[in-house]
Amino acid sequence: MNNKEKNKGGEGCVFCKIVSGALPSNKVYEDDIVLAFLDIKPVNMGHTLIIPKKHFESIHDLPEEIGSHVMKIAKKISTALKETGADGTNITINNGKDAGQIIFHFHIHIIPRFTGDNLPLWPVKDSRGEELEKIARKISIAL
Amino acid sequence: MNNKEKNKGGEGCVFCKIVSGALPSNKVYEDDIVLAFLDIKPVNMGHTLIIPKKHFESIHDLPEEIGSHVMKIAKKISTALKETGADGTNITINNGKDAGQIIFHFHIHIIPRFTGDNLPLWPVKDSRGEELEKIARKISIAL
Repeated sequence: MNNKEKNKGGEGCVFCKIVSGALPSNKVYEDDIVLAFLDIKPVNMGHTLIIPKKHFESIHDLPEEIGSHVMKIAKKISTALKETGADGTNITINNGKDAGQIIFHFHIHIIPRFTGDNLPLWPVKDSRGEELEKIARKISIAL
Repeated sequence: MNNKEKNKGGEGCVFCKIVSGALPSNKVYEDDIVLAFLDIKPVNMGHTLIIPKKHFESIHDLPEEIGSHVMKIAKKISTALKETGADGTNITINNGKDAGQIIFHFHIHIIPRFTGDNLPLWPVKDSRGEELEKIARKISIAL
């Protein structure tokens, strides 16, 4: 199966199979639009994924109204994780293989964090004012 | 200044000062609800932050309608970053100091990624089915 086939959803997509019930999952939440279940390879225990039931590859083809709903459920799950003992949460979306996306069905990670769990932030670069100005201009033109 | 004061926004908050114009920023996008500008300590060049103009500490006190709008703008900026040369993007929110939040005014990071930039995903843990079932039940009860 090549990447193009994988991105179509349905038979070739693990998350579509979880939605259809062809594969099992540890469900946390479900409604007409999204499904939330535990990541079987958690960064920390409680690591939850929210996916739209319909197949979209990444944020770039996700309809706005579904994105809004995902964000609403992300807040609820983040709050629930804190209520069950997390000291903080990271909410992350990886778009594209170069960003670490592994399953090409849009998903948002809600990762519970605990004091002293030692997960590092990514290193940052120095930046010069002139360079930032140039980049900001470039992005705002592309918007 | 203690943490409690820092969390109130206004005078004590760097992002509130950027919104008011008391501190400069490299703006990428602005509307009535949000402001997007470049992170001065970028993980990769083009690393953009979106903040609500009103002060909220984290996702836990962010109103749903603002969260929806932030998500809509995150999609636009992620798409613009790809159009200006990124191979992928990470969209991340850190909630709480134990999750790496440094400025206590809600913000979402849009980080452009480039093939071979070698930013690692966090290590994952093994999980047992029984343990996952127990945690899923605990979270869904807290929802």
